[in-house]
Amino acid sequence: MIKVAIVGATGYTGVELIRILLNHPDVEITSLTRKGESLSNISEAFPHMYNQLALPCNTLKNPEQVAEKADIVFMALPHCSGLELTNQFLKLGKIVIDLSADFRLKDADIYEKWYKTKHIHPKLLNEAVYGLPEVYKSNIKKAKLIANPGCFPTGAILALKPLISSELVKTGSIIIDSKSGASGAGRGLNLKSLFSEINENITAYNINTHRHLPEMIQELTEPERDTVQITFTPHLIPVTRGILTTSYVSVRDNKAVADVIDIYKDFYKDSPFIRILPEGIVPQTKHVYGSNYCDIGIFQNKEAHQIIIISAIDNLVKGASGQAVENMNIVCGIKETAGLNFTPVFP
Amino acid sequence: MIKVAIVGATGYTGVELIRILLNHPDVEITSLTRKGESLSNISEAFPHMYNQLALPCNTLKNPEQVAEKADIVFMALPHCSGLELTNQFLKLGKIVIDLSADFRLKDADIYEKWYKTKHIHPKLLNEAVYGLPEVYKSNIKKAKLIANPGCFPTGAILALKPLISSELVKTGSIIIDSKSGASGAGRGLNLKSLFSEINENITAYNINTHRHLPEMIQELTEPERDTVQITFTPHLIPVTRGILTTSYVSVRDNKAVADVIDIYKDFYKDSPFIRILPEGIVPQTKHVYGSNYCDIGIFQNKEAHQIIIISAIDNLVKGASGQAVENMNIVCGIKETAGLNFTPVFP
Amino acid sequence: MIKVAIVGATGYTGVELIRILLNHPDVEITSLTRKGESLSNISEAFPHMYNQLALPCNTLKNPEQVAEKADIVFMALPHCSGLELTNQFLKLGKIVIDLSADFRLKDADIYEKWYKTKHIHPKLLNEAVYGLPEVYKSNIKKAKLIANPGCFPTGAILALKPLISSELVKTGSIIIDSKSGASGAGRGLNLKSLFSEINENITAYNINTHRHLPEMIQELTEPERDTVQITFTPHLIPVTRGILTTSYVSVRDNKAVADVIDIYKDFYKDSPFIRILPEGIVPQTKHVYGSNYCDIGIFQNKEAHQIIIISAIDNLVKGASGQAVENMNIVCGIKETAGLNFTPVFP
Amino acid sequence: MIKVAIVGATGYTGVELIRILLNHPDVEITSLTRKGESLSNISEAFPHMYNQLALPCNTLKNPEQVAEKADIVFMALPHCSGLELTNQFLKLGKIVIDLSADFRLKDADIYEKWYKTKHIHPKLLNEAVYGLPEVYKSNIKKAKLIANPGCFPTGAILALKPLISSELVKTGSIIIDSKSGASGAGRGLNLKSLFSEINENITAYNINTHRHLPEMIQELTEPERDTVQITFTPHLIPVTRGILTTSYVSVRDNKAVADVIDIYKDFYKDSPFIRILPEGIVPQTKHVYGSNYCDIGIFQNKEAHQIIIISAIDNLVKGASGQAVENMNIVCGIKETAGLNFTPVFP
Repeated sequence: MIKVAIVGATGYTGVELIRILLNHPDVEITSLTRKGESLSNISEAFPHMYNQLALPCNTLKNPEQVAEKADIVFMALPHCSGLELTNQFLKLGKIVIDLSADFRLKDADIYEKWYKTKHIHPKLLNEAVYGLPEVYKSNIKKAKLIANPGCFPTGAILALKPLISSELVKTGSIIIDSKSGASGAGRGLNLKSLFSEINENITAYNINTHRHLPEMIQELTEPERDTVQITFTPHLIPVTRGILTTSYVSVRDNKAVADVIDIYKDFYKDSPFIRILPEGIVPQTKHVYGSNYCDIGIFQNKEAHQIIIISAIDNLVKGASGQAVENMNIVCGIKETAGLNFTPVFP
Repeated sequence: MIKVAIVGATGYTGVELIRILLNHPDVEITSLTRKGESLSNISEAFPHMYNQLALPCNTLKNPEQVAEKADIVFMALPHCSGLELTNQFLKLGKIVIDLSADFRLKDADIYEKWYKTKHIHPKLLNEAVYGLPEVYKSNIKKAKLIANPGCFPTGAILALKPLISSELVKTGSIIIDSKSGASGAGRGLNLKSLFSEINENITAYNINTHRHLPEMIQELTEPERDTVQITFTPHLIPVTRGILTTSYVSVRDNKAVADVIDIYKDFYKDSPFIRILPEGIVPQTKHVYGSNYCDIGIFQNKEAHQIIIISAIDNLVKGASGQAVENMNIVCGIKETAGLNFTPVFP
Repeated sequence: MIKVAIVGATGYTGVELIRILLNHPDVEITSLTRKGESLSNISEAFPHMYNQLALPCNTLKNPEQVAEKADIVFMALPHCSGLELTNQFLKLGKIVIDLSADFRLKDADIYEKWYKTKHIHPKLLNEAVYGLPEVYKSNIKKAKLIANPGCFPTGAILALKPLISSELVKTGSIIIDSKSGASGAGRGLNLKSLFSEINENITAYNINTHRHLPEMIQELTEPERDTVQITFTPHLIPVTRGILTTSYVSVRDNKAVADVIDIYKDFYKDSPFIRILPEGIVPQTKHVYGSNYCDIGIFQNKEAHQIIIISAIDNLVKGASGQAVENMNIVCGIKETAGLNFTPVFP
Repeated sequence: MIKVAIVGATGYTGVELIRILLNHPDVEITSLTRKGESLSNISEAFPHMYNQLALPCNTLKNPEQVAEKADIVFMALPHCSGLELTNQFLKLGKIVIDLSADFRLKDADIYEKWYKTKHIHPKLLNEAVYGLPEVYKSNIKKAKLIANPGCFPTGAILALKPLISSELVKTGSIIIDSKSGASGAGRGLNLKSLFSEINENITAYNINTHRHLPEMIQELTEPERDTVQITFTPHLIPVTRGILTTSYVSVRDNKAVADVIDIYKDFYKDSPFIRILPEGIVPQTKHVYGSNYCDIGIFQNKEAHQIIIISAIDNLVKGASGQAVENMNIVCGIKETAGLNFTPVFP
C-alpha cells in the first residue's frame, strides 16, 4: 500500500483527491491537514464525506509527523503558501506532488512577474518535473517533485502539443479560447464566485493576462524554435466542473482531418486517458464528467488553412486531482490507470 | 463472474447501469439491447461511453439469444413495454430485475387505474418482490422477479418507514413534498423537458395525481393498519440528478430528535447505503451525487407535534440503477455493496 | 414627479429598485447611497447599469442632504443597520419604505428573540404599516413608515390569507414548504452562496428556525383566534430569482376547488398583481420572472381533507423591490400599477 | 397607434415580440396566429401571458383578414415555412419584418446551398433590407421587407464591422468563437435541447458549418474588397438567454485599445443600443439580459498584433424580437428606442 498525506484537504482539489484515493486499490490515506481549525472528520467541512474516512483533518504543525506516515505528499494549497513546506517534505525524503502553480514555471523571473512574489526556492524549479504524463512520463518516473499542471494548460497543451510538435503549424499566433466551470476558482469567498453572479451568465475574464498563459507558452514552445505566440481568453460558464478548450491554429498545408487525427492517435498511443474522437464528433465536458479522460476532436476550415482542435476535461480530475493521482501511479511504478478508470457520469 | 444483459440500454437508467456495472468487480455485461435501430457501439448514442465497452447494442429480436448469455436480465424499458419480455425471460429461467413500474403494485386493478392499461401478467405481481433492500432483503435473496422501486417512492419510503412502523405516528395525512431533477423524466422528447422550460424555473406538477403515489401508499401502509393517507406533491427543479424529499408527519408525543434518530439508526443498522445524519445536519442532493447513498435528516416542530424527515438520493443511482445493482448483489449472494461503494462527486 | 432616494443602492434589492424606478413614468431618483466607498456611478458596482443613470452612489454621511431632495426614502439595508437612519428620515418628515426586517414585527420582544438584538426604536413598531397591499392598502395610504414584507412571507401570506380568514380552515398546523432562488440571500460573501455549492444541488435550511417564520405567524393569525401554528421549511434551489411556496392546510369540509378559487378571486378582486390561475394550472416561478405578479394555484386531496395552495413570485420584485414601489404608488396616491406592469420574461 | 400582426406567435421569438410590444406606447397588437391548433388565448401555450392580452391565437387561414387589421406584419416562423405568406402580405401592401433566415442572404444560390431548398421568391431577396439598424438605418426607413438578422450574426457583425470597415485589419482569417444559450434553438422537440443534455455541459457544434456563417460573410465583406474569411465556432452553454461572441482579428499596426475604442464609439455614435464599454470592462450576457443592448469590449494581444472584440447580446431581444421592434420603429418613423429602453434584469 502506498501511504499518502494530503496537505490542504478542505479545498475542492483536496477533497477530490480524497474521493479518488478512496477508490484506489493500492493507497492508504494516512493524514489530512488544512490551514484553518482542526476538524475531527473531513465530513465537518464536506458532509458528502460522511462515513467515508475515519481520519481527523488537523492544522499542520509538524511536517515530520506527517512525513513519517507518508510515502507521497500531495500539496493542495494555494500558490505561494506551500513553498517552504514542500522544501521540508523533500528534505525529509518524501516525494511531493504539488497541485499549486509554484513549481510549474522553469524561470523564477517569469514566476515573479506573473505571481507578484519572489520565488523562495528557485533551485527547486529545475528539479521539478512538469507532471503531464502524456509528455513527460519518463521524467515523472524518476521525479522527487512533481508540478501538477494547471487546469487550463492541461486542456490546451493536450489539444495542441501533437500539432505543434509536428511540422504542420505555421508561425503566427495560436488562439486558445477556453470555457471553464466555476469550481476552477476554488472554494474561496469572492463576489465573482457567487451563484447569482455566474448563473444565467456567460463572460470572459483576464483576457490574455491569465496566470496560466506563461505555463502554456513554456510547454508549447518547442526546444529549438521561437517562443510560441498565444492569445488566451478564458471564459466563465455556469457549470461546476468542466473545461472546453477551443483552439485555432494556422497550418501550412491542408492535411485531411483524418490525417491529423492519425498524428494525434500516434502521439497519444501510450496515453490511456486521451480519447481522440472519430471525425465529426465534438467533445463535450459532460462526456468526461468526474473522470480522468481528456476527449479531443479535430476540425478544419480548409479555405482559411486552419485547424480547430477542441478538448474537454473535468478540471478537478484530469485538470487537477486525477492527474495528480496519475502522476503518483507513475512515480510509484504501478499501473497508470490504477484507481482512475471510472466511467464518466452522464447525464 | 455474473453475466448480465441490459434490455433498454439507451435510456438514462440503462446507460447508468452500464456505468455502474463496468465498475463492478464480479460482473460481465454480455448483451445490450434497445428498441430503436441497432448500434455498433453504445457510444453512438452516448459519446461519454467511448472506449468503455466493446459490445454492440442491437434491437432485441430473440430473447433466447440474450438469455443464453445471461444470469441476470435488467429490464430498463418504459412501463408496459417490457411486460411480455419479462415473462419470457422468467420462463427461460433467468432472474429479472425490472426498473419499470410494471411489477411494483400488488393489485392489478390499481395498476390499471393509474397506468390506464390492463396488466397482461397479473399473476407475476404476486411473484415479484419489491426491491427495496432496506425493507425486503430476505425476500430479495430468493426472488426470481425483482420490481425495482420508483425514484420518488425510494426517497419517500426510506424517509418514512421507520417512523410509520413505530407507534409514534398519529393517524391523519402524511405530506410528502418532493423535489426532483430533470433526468427522472427520462430521455424522451417532451416540451416540459426542454432546457429553456426548466432552467431558472421552479414548479410543481401532477399534484396528488403522480403515478408513484399508489406505490408509496402500498409500501407505507402497515399490515394490520388502515391505509395510510398521503398528500404527494412532486416538484421539478433545474438540476439533472437528485431527489430531495421533505416529509411531514404528526406524532403523538414529542420524542426528542435524538430519540427519533436512534429509531432510524436501529431500523437501518444492516443497511449500508443509509446515512442517518447527525442532529442538525440537512441532507443535500449534491452530497449523494453519483452514489448509492440515501442521506436522512430528522427535524421537529415541537409545538405542532410534527416531525420533518428529509431524505436525499441520486434518482439515477439509489433511485434506479444503483438500487437495481444492489438487488442483483443480494439475489446473487455477493456483498451488498460490491461495485457500489463509490464516494459522492462533490462539488 | 415623485423624488426618491435609495439608501443601500448596491445590494440586489437596491439595484432592482433602480431598474424598476427607471421604468416608472412618475419618479425621479435623486440620490443613491451605500455603505462602502463612494462610486462615481452605480455601473462601477453593476455594469448592467452602464449608461442608465447619471448619478453618483456616495457613502451616506448627511441624511439631511438626502432628505432635502426626496419625498420618499427607500431603505435597502441589512436588518438592524438602518434603524437609526430611518428614525432620522421620519423626523425630517420623509416617508420611509424599509425593505429590511426591522419594522415588520409588532412585538419588540419577538424581534429581539429572532434577530438577537434589542430594537432601538420600539415605538416605531406601532407606527409602521406592514406593506402588503393586498391586505393593508387603506393603512398604507396614510402611512409614514412602511415595513416592506419579507420574500418568503409575501409568497406564503398571499397563498394562505384568503383561506385562513375564511371559516374553512381546521385548527392544527399549516405546512409551508418554500423553494427559493439564491438571490434572496443577497450579495454578501458566504460559502453557502457560492455557485459550486448551489448548482446541481437541492437542500433545505433553517428548518422551522428561519427568521421569516414569526412574520408569517403574526400576519396569518386572525384577530380573535388562536395563534396559528406553522411548520416552515425553506429550500435553496439553483435558480437566481423566484420563490415557489407549496402550502398544505387541513379543511373542515371538502369544498370543490372551483369554490375555493372563487374565495380567492373575491379576496383579491382589487389586487392587480394577483393572478388566480384556472383550475389545474400550476404556478411556475419563471412565469412571473422579473414581474410584480404573484400567481396562485389551488389543489386538493379530497380523502385527506386537504387543500394545497401554491404561489409563485419573483423574490426581488413582488418579494422585495417591486412591492416597495407598489407601496410607494399607494402612499403617493397614484395608480397602484404605475411603472410596474411589465410582462414576465419567459423563457 | 401602429397596428401589428404576429404570425408564429407561439415560438420563443413570437412570444418575446408580444412581451416587448405590450410595453410599447405606440403599438396595438391586432392579431396573433400560429401553425398548430387555435388557442382562445396565448396563455394556453404560455401561462406567463395570463391576463396580459385578450386576443385569440388562431391558425392562419386567411392572410387578407390579418392584413386588414395590420400596418406591420411580424413573421416569426421557421425558415422556408413563411416565404409564400410574406409574398402575399407584401402584395397586400403591408410592411413585413421577417425574423426567419429567408431574406437575409442576397444570393439565392447561397441560400439553396445552406438551407437545402430552392428559394421560391428570389426576386424578393433584392428588395429585402438587412435589418441591422446600426448599418442600414437609412435603407430600413424606406423598406417594405425587412430581413431581421440572425442572432449569431447580430453579435458578430456588431463586434466586427467598425474594425473591418476601417483600414486596420490584415487580410487573413477572422475567428468568431460564439457562446449561446439554449433558447436560440427554439421550442422544437430535439434531443439536444433537453435539460439533462445541456445542463452542466459545455460543447461546440456545427463547427464552421453553421447556417449563420454565410450571413456573416455577406455582411462583413466590404464592397470593393475580397470576401472575408471567417472561422466560426458556435458553442452551446447552459443558460437560457444570451450570446457572448469572442472574435479575434489580426491587425497591421498596434493601435492602442483606447484608439480602437474611439473608432467604435464613432461608428456607433447614432446607435442607441450599442454600449462600448470602458477599457478593461468585459461584456457579460447577464448585463444585457432581457434588454435590447449590445455591449462591446475591446482587448488586445500586442505581441501577436491581435485585437480581441467581445460582444454580448440577449439572443431573443437584440438577437431577434427586440431588433425586430427596433426595425419597426425605424420604418414607422418613430423614435428608435420607443418601447425598448428597459434596463437589463440583473441578477
